[in-house]
Amino acid sequence: MNKSKNSSQINILLRELIKSYRKDSGSNFIDDTNLPVNNSIKEILDLLLEVLFPGYKGIRKITTENVSYIIGSLLCRVRGLLIEQITRTLKHECRLKNSDNSCDCAKNAEAVVASLLDSLIHIRKILQTDVKAAYEGDPAAKSLEEIVISYPGLKAIAIHRIAHELYTLHVPLIPRMMNEIAHSETGIDIHPGAEIGERFFIDHGTGVVIGETTVIGKNVKIYQGVTLGALSFSTDEEGNIIKEIKRHPNILNDVTIYAGATILGNITIGKGSIIGGNAWIKDNVPGGILVGHPYQKNIEKKL
Amino acid sequence: MNKSKNSSQINILLRELIKSYRKDSGSNFIDDTNLPVNNSIKEILDLLLEVLFPGYKGIRKITTENVSYIIGSLLCRVRGLLIEQITRTLKHECRLKNSDNSCDCAKNAEAVVASLLDSLIHIRKILQTDVKAAYEGDPAAKSLEEIVISYPGLKAIAIHRIAHELYTLHVPLIPRMMNEIAHSETGIDIHPGAEIGERFFIDHGTGVVIGETTVIGKNVKIYQGVTLGALSFSTDEEGNIIKEIKRHPNILNDVTIYAGATILGNITIGKGSIIGGNAWIKDNVPGGILVGHPYQKNIEKKL
Amino acid sequence: MNKSKNSSQINILLRELIKSYRKDSGSNFIDDTNLPVNNSIKEILDLLLEVLFPGYKGIRKITTENVSYIIGSLLCRVRGLLIEQITRTLKHECRLKNSDNSCDCAKNAEAVVASLLDSLIHIRKILQTDVKAAYEGDPAAKSLEEIVISYPGLKAIAIHRIAHELYTLHVPLIPRMMNEIAHSETGIDIHPGAEIGERFFIDHGTGVVIGETTVIGKNVKIYQGVTLGALSFSTDEEGNIIKEIKRHPNILNDVTIYAGATILGNITIGKGSIIGGNAWIKDNVPGGILVGHPYQKNIEKKL
Repeated sequence: MNKSKNSSQINILLRELIKSYRKDSGSNFIDDTNLPVNNSIKEILDLLLEVLFPGYKGIRKITTENVSYIIGSLLCRVRGLLIEQITRTLKHECRLKNSDNSCDCAKNAEAVVASLLDSLIHIRKILQTDVKAAYEGDPAAKSLEEIVISYPGLKAIAIHRIAHELYTLHVPLIPRMMNEIAHSETGIDIHPGAEIGERFFIDHGTGVVIGETTVIGKNVKIYQGVTLGALSFSTDEEGNIIKEIKRHPNILNDVTIYAGATILGNITIGKGSIIGGNAWIKDNVPGGILVGHPYQKNIEKKL
Repeated sequence: MNKSKNSSQINILLRELIKSYRKDSGSNFIDDTNLPVNNSIKEILDLLLEVLFPGYKGIRKITTENVSYIIGSLLCRVRGLLIEQITRTLKHECRLKNSDNSCDCAKNAEAVVASLLDSLIHIRKILQTDVKAAYEGDPAAKSLEEIVISYPGLKAIAIHRIAHELYTLHVPLIPRMMNEIAHSETGIDIHPGAEIGERFFIDHGTGVVIGETTVIGKNVKIYQGVTLGALSFSTDEEGNIIKEIKRHPNILNDVTIYAGATILGNITIGKGSIIGGNAWIKDNVPGGILVGHPYQKNIEKKL
Repeated sequence: MNKSKNSSQINILLRELIKSYRKDSGSNFIDDTNLPVNNSIKEILDLLLEVLFPGYKGIRKITTENVSYIIGSLLCRVRGLLIEQITRTLKHECRLKNSDNSCDCAKNAEAVVASLLDSLIHIRKILQTDVKAAYEGDPAAKSLEEIVISYPGLKAIAIHRIAHELYTLHVPLIPRMMNEIAHSETGIDIHPGAEIGERFFIDHGTGVVIGETTVIGKNVKIYQGVTLGALSFSTDEEGNIIKEIKRHPNILNDVTIYAGATILGNITIGKGSIIGGNAWIKDNVPGGILVGHPYQKNIEKKL
């Protein structure tokens, strides 16, 4: 294939691509405002985790003398990045909603970021309880540091607590991007809408799914492969799924849910109950009981 | 330990390593042609996703004026990288097969890349149907953009549709590398050999496995932890596994498969059927029915 | 919000953060020695994998002439990085244990690294058996190269064999960091304490969990979603979990464990037995038998 043939193929392809960008909506961003940048959201999370767990990445040596400079400069940088990305996503939403341009997206972004920064001390406090719950709940954990620097469950809940704050501040897109960054790194998929109390511990974690309208109390422990999901979706008269309805479980305080259990629908698991591995729950469970999967004797066959 | 002791340890180790490289085959690449570079394959996928969903990464601001320059330069770059990597893998295969050097691998690579580029418009069109299916199938989805920039299921199917094209063009190694790049990022493992129709939606996705000879129709929806696998492997007279036999399921149009279901063997799930969560299927399922796992009442015990 | 307001918010936040860093322990690293750097541990693993599978990344073209220079320089670099990171983690532990400073952490780190390097030939040899087991056990595998450059199960076991060596040398933190780097990339979570024999093959792998005190024989094959876990945790008189007790399964030679099976507690699965998909095992299993989940006929309902 000679050079002119190549360049003519690319020219034809380019023309058709641009035509197709114009035709469809949704993933066609021509002349649209820019979406948030995934790599910036990753950097924001990295910086916030460093503020919440100083020294956890081991890159910066933090001492009594330099701590205020290091953390201060991290905070300034993360503030700037957050304002930039939240401004983008607010502008994008304004455009989608055909607003009249009276909205000052940049100013609104500043207010959102101020609220998030205000919540950092509280987020740090509650994350300390998560670290302790992991240490007390896992016989393989050798130290609190091990949990901070290596447990995927801690990373997932730390990112969730930040994303959930932005979700409650009605920031579009970015909380879900944060959720999926954590999901990709840890295999744990917590929708930013979920409300989760202190002393929360997910062990191993791969395959955990926690839906948007889930509410979890204090001191709850969850193992790998647990789904807190929706049972069925309500539809409107035209058969379209109705969005934003409470459709996920409520897990009360002190509940433990073992690996692979599936809990579906807007039901309640009572205080202190234990859900056995692989159990399948679609009804309310009272407090103080163990619900096990009725494992029959396995079939055995000589090979 | 002093310096000379260190360097003597490394010298001895080096000698033994090189001896061991020569001895075994398979992972011994001395004097062999180079294998494809994983980081280049990642860059190729990034560029192709940007072409298929312009602006999705948020890095490049795309407008009516600049769109043809930006996308045109992406296409030129991805074309060059693809030719380089596909030439490598074709040369490597020629060497493995002890071909007579009459094969013009570089020219063959150019032809393969031309075919892939020709298919991009079709791939983009079918991916648009996947985006819409996700939006219509998930009550938590707030916008089409959210799906494009954050849903792992969309990333997995987008990469699969590219990898599958190269698989049908008989490119060795690279389709599986693409599949595993997607698997690592999303937890979704789709073998590039699988044939998948339009309007395909995987929700959450962690733990999904779709085998090499699976055939999936249109408008199929799959949840996390679903396996479409092989039941058993045929072996030849010497007990070696026979490769490349049709051994995975056929999923007809409009089927939904809930979380954790396992469907094994070269069987067919009929049009419009629903497979319940955790179901275990080894036989054909007719169309239009619900197949559920026979959950018994759970065992309950006061704690 | 004006600039002075912003900077006053950050000042207040900074004061409160530093107060909180001082108050709590565990994730408070002020004036503590630095923890190991996660990115360095990643680089160490990359370099070691290149030494064990020369050319697998495709970046360096390795020939008979240059092989000793390339591998020699990789070994020197990895040796330096390892000593640096292991010195950090040993110093950190000395400090936690309030040792009397008589410990020469840097010297101890050098001795540990010399032991690890000494074990590389053995690790390479055993990994070759893992590659062959994967090729022989998976009908979709087209070549040994495909396994080396794309199978997540091979990456996980290769990293595990390195991490386990450091675990047996009593290096704190770093083996678990390596384990979690592999877990994040592959979805396979193998605690560095687990003892695993040759010809080990994990197919697909997402969701696999192998606990700290697991012992696995030769020629064992495991599919996605398998858990080799603990059944319950022993507690001391004050109700705290007792750490470091043998609490995970023993899998003897030639065992196959299909997708989603859960094996719990310090029990033994006998030689050559097959554990069926989704089986739930809490008792010893003799050798030479098949243990299946008693799947009842599924419930079918017309839609």
